[in-house]
Amino acid sequence: MQMFRTFLFRVTLIPALFSLLAIAAPAAQAESYGDDYAHIIDLQGRYIFAQDFNDADGYAAVFTEDGVLDWAGGEVKGREAIRKFKADGVYNLSKNAENAAWPASTRHFITNTVVTVTGDTAKAWTYWFQANNNTADRKSSYGLYGHYEDDLRRVNGQWLFSRRAIYNEGVKGRAKSGTKNPVK
Amino acid sequence: MQMFRTFLFRVTLIPALFSLLAIAAPAAQAESYGDDYAHIIDLQGRYIFAQDFNDADGYAAVFTEDGVLDWAGGEVKGREAIRKFKADGVYNLSKNAENAAWPASTRHFITNTVVTVTGDTAKAWTYWFQANNNTADRKSSYGLYGHYEDDLRRVNGQWLFSRRAIYNEGVKGRAKSGTKNPVK
Amino acid sequence: MQMFRTFLFRVTLIPALFSLLAIAAPAAQAESYGDDYAHIIDLQGRYIFAQDFNDADGYAAVFTEDGVLDWAGGEVKGREAIRKFKADGVYNLSKNAENAAWPASTRHFITNTVVTVTGDTAKAWTYWFQANNNTADRKSSYGLYGHYEDDLRRVNGQWLFSRRAIYNEGVKGRAKSGTKNPVK
Repeated sequence: MQMFRTFLFRVTLIPALFSLLAIAAPAAQAESYGDDYAHIIDLQGRYIFAQDFNDADGYAAVFTEDGVLDWAGGEVKGREAIRKFKADGVYNLSKNAENAAWPASTRHFITNTVVTVTGDTAKAWTYWFQANNNTADRKSSYGLYGHYEDDLRRVNGQWLFSRRAIYNEGVKGRAKSGTKNPVK
Repeated sequence: MQMFRTFLFRVTLIPALFSLLAIAAPAAQAESYGDDYAHIIDLQGRYIFAQDFNDADGYAAVFTEDGVLDWAGGEVKGREAIRKFKADGVYNLSKNAENAAWPASTRHFITNTVVTVTGDTAKAWTYWFQANNNTADRKSSYGLYGHYEDDLRRVNGQWLFSRRAIYNEGVKGRAKSGTKNPVK
Repeated sequence: MQMFRTFLFRVTLIPALFSLLAIAAPAAQAESYGDDYAHIIDLQGRYIFAQDFNDADGYAAVFTEDGVLDWAGGEVKGREAIRKFKADGVYNLSKNAENAAWPASTRHFITNTVVTVTGDTAKAWTYWFQANNNTADRKSSYGLYGHYEDDLRRVNGQWLFSRRAIYNEGVKGRAKSGTKNPVK
């Protein structure tokens, strides 16, 4: 009997292990389009909060170690350079408007994200526009707009920007209107 | 032989049950990040449609029974109080502008949602801005902006707001600019 | 012993097959709410990029073969008619403003998407607003706003618009303010 038990254990172990694998699978592989899409627009949201609340660490954290930020002023290469770029406040429009009412804010709103995923890389296209209240009365005004073209990479299970290019319809040379649809 | 069959049945029953569990699992638990994210931004969208189309029942329905709405005027506590608050039209900017052209509208646009899920609770951070056309010619103007900080709870499989705090960059004391990034 | 092995094989085959089925299941059926939601807002984003970058083929590609576009000027019926409608540039606000600075842009921003899925059909409700820079200095201005009411159909695994109705708070007869919440 003991031999049969041992034998049975071995024979039934295979389906049992398959079963456990199947239970574990949704967590292990999963990553459907819905998951990837959600993680990518969550990442885009985190970029915006870090940008507008002047959080240089949070701003750098959404890029890969070798990530590139391509904006109207040129290219900023590598996470550490991006962190420094943000900390230096080069394009913080509200920083010189603190002497009235309450602190001024610049806010970026992002919409219409299109995402194409290919394994552990992805491309995304997203609109942005900007609002400010940097006058003494803190009245809001809506300003520039444009779009992002992003390359993303999944690193240790986390989507990050390997390259973010910012196009701006209010800046000559960074506008993309009158050109082909960038979405592929 | 019968004894062996019985024995075999018992031994193989375990992996078989595991298998059935695994098949049932995607429907039963599922709720990947993508599912949670989608349900939460769908809920946020429903809040906005109910708000702008003055649907007090729909507005209350997105909160838990003990949900709290924290806005510039104070805290409104409990689903029924929130329903009444909305029905009373306290912050309906278009209600006094019906005497021209066609009915006026106030619209809230929400973007950049960041979501962190922990089991059956979640946190979300979202930008909002507002547009109105409450002049006689129904010309649109863009007004206030700010962000939401939400606590959510999954009740009977449905995500609901247990607390929604509305911050407003156009209202002293409700602005959050110049402070730390609220996203954790 | 051989007979037992054969017997065991058969008995354990059932759970083993169930296991394989369970492993295959997530990939085979998948299409959770999160997946559907992501595919639908991705589609909505593609519509906008095609619209604003004057890509008539891309604009038509998001509709079913028998799709209907219902806008302020009436109904456009069928993918080919929609392609022609877009190619004709009926509502391209930037087309007559190319004679200064750099090409003008019209951009549509969409937010707050609510989605209800029923098998291979879905309904969606989404806000839109529009920005332009069609003055000589390319200064941005924010203009019209409204919402979409969409019917969608899954064709060969891909979500497409079977009907998109565009409501516009700046156009008498296409405004929906003062009416019931359209979201069901």
